[in-house]
Amino acid sequence: MLTIYGDVNSGNCYKAKLAAEQCGHAYDWRPVDILKKETHTEDFLAKNPNGKIPLLELEDGTCLSESNAILFFLARDTALFPADKLAQARVLQWLFFEQYSHEPYIAVARYIIRYLGRPAEMEETLQSKMAGGYKALQVMETQLAKTPFLTGESYSIADIGLFAYTHVAAEGDFDLSRFPAVLDWIDRVKQQPGYVPIG
Amino acid sequence: MLTIYGDVNSGNCYKAKLAAEQCGHAYDWRPVDILKKETHTEDFLAKNPNGKIPLLELEDGTCLSESNAILFFLARDTALFPADKLAQARVLQWLFFEQYSHEPYIAVARYIIRYLGRPAEMEETLQSKMAGGYKALQVMETQLAKTPFLTGESYSIADIGLFAYTHVAAEGDFDLSRFPAVLDWIDRVKQQPGYVPIG
Repeated sequence: MLTIYGDVNSGNCYKAKLAAEQCGHAYDWRPVDILKKETHTEDFLAKNPNGKIPLLELEDGTCLSESNAILFFLARDTALFPADKLAQARVLQWLFFEQYSHEPYIAVARYIIRYLGRPAEMEETLQSKMAGGYKALQVMETQLAKTPFLTGESYSIADIGLFAYTHVAAEGDFDLSRFPAVLDWIDRVKQQPGYVPIG
Repeated sequence: MLTIYGDVNSGNCYKAKLAAEQCGHAYDWRPVDILKKETHTEDFLAKNPNGKIPLLELEDGTCLSESNAILFFLARDTALFPADKLAQARVLQWLFFEQYSHEPYIAVARYIIRYLGRPAEMEETLQSKMAGGYKALQVMETQLAKTPFLTGESYSIADIGLFAYTHVAAEGDFDLSRFPAVLDWIDRVKQQPGYVPIG
């Protein structure tokens, strides 16, 4: 049995849960509260020296961190990860885009508003995060206006990776009505077999 | 023949060059100047809507972006990428760590100092980037005190991905003498067959 350490409201953690469900892996979910610094206990740091969730633990105690590496591990031998080298690289391209150009803006804007209560002294940071987030959403819109899923005709872990924070972007004050192809894609992801909501 | 669009002094672009050399791929290098906004021309944005280098172009015109997805594409069928699923996920774990917890700190500190000339009004940002960078270096040190390469006994694209900005971290004012295992690893990477320096 796999163990996933996570916070059910974190998009990064939700990725692991959604992929485990959709790839048919049984798992035990262990709640971890980052606001209580539970990712910085001695025990947790022994599992992940970078002190972050989600964390996947295999039956033999082996631990794997980084949400998108966990997606790869859960999905590699399933229909959610392609077999062709270029198609695989394209999935990874979107997952690296997510961690560099999307999550640091959209997830952080959501965090400032939902978890920190939008403090006035963070308004400038928030506006800068929102500008970067809108740029990322436009890159997604450009692709999704051409293909039903991010890498083409097939649903993959690239879609799970980007869906996690995009579908709750309104909680970061983003107006998704400006991105009709993204909104259609969100509906499409919600219709995939094994879909479970965040939270 | 592959084409790599890049800047020879960018660590992200250097990753693609080093992997192409070490995996034995012939390539044509096309210089792109980000300070002249050459990543935001209409032609370039048609190749990568996210407006970033490096960019890998295949002979048929197919383009792949994101430095670490390019590493995967260049290395998948070589000794620089393992065959086992968990080992592959571990390589990706380090590459995602690099893009989220390392590059945004170490590469950005280097950029502020080397490219922008350390302007006084950016000193607070710089100090914050350096704190994050030292945290990332400590995570690497913890691993490299145990194994010769980041994922264990074998050199892989995880090492290329982390080497790119780590070995020039002094240009971001980082003191690597605090990380002896990292320094030994830098020497080890420089001894790998096909190694070429940045620049």
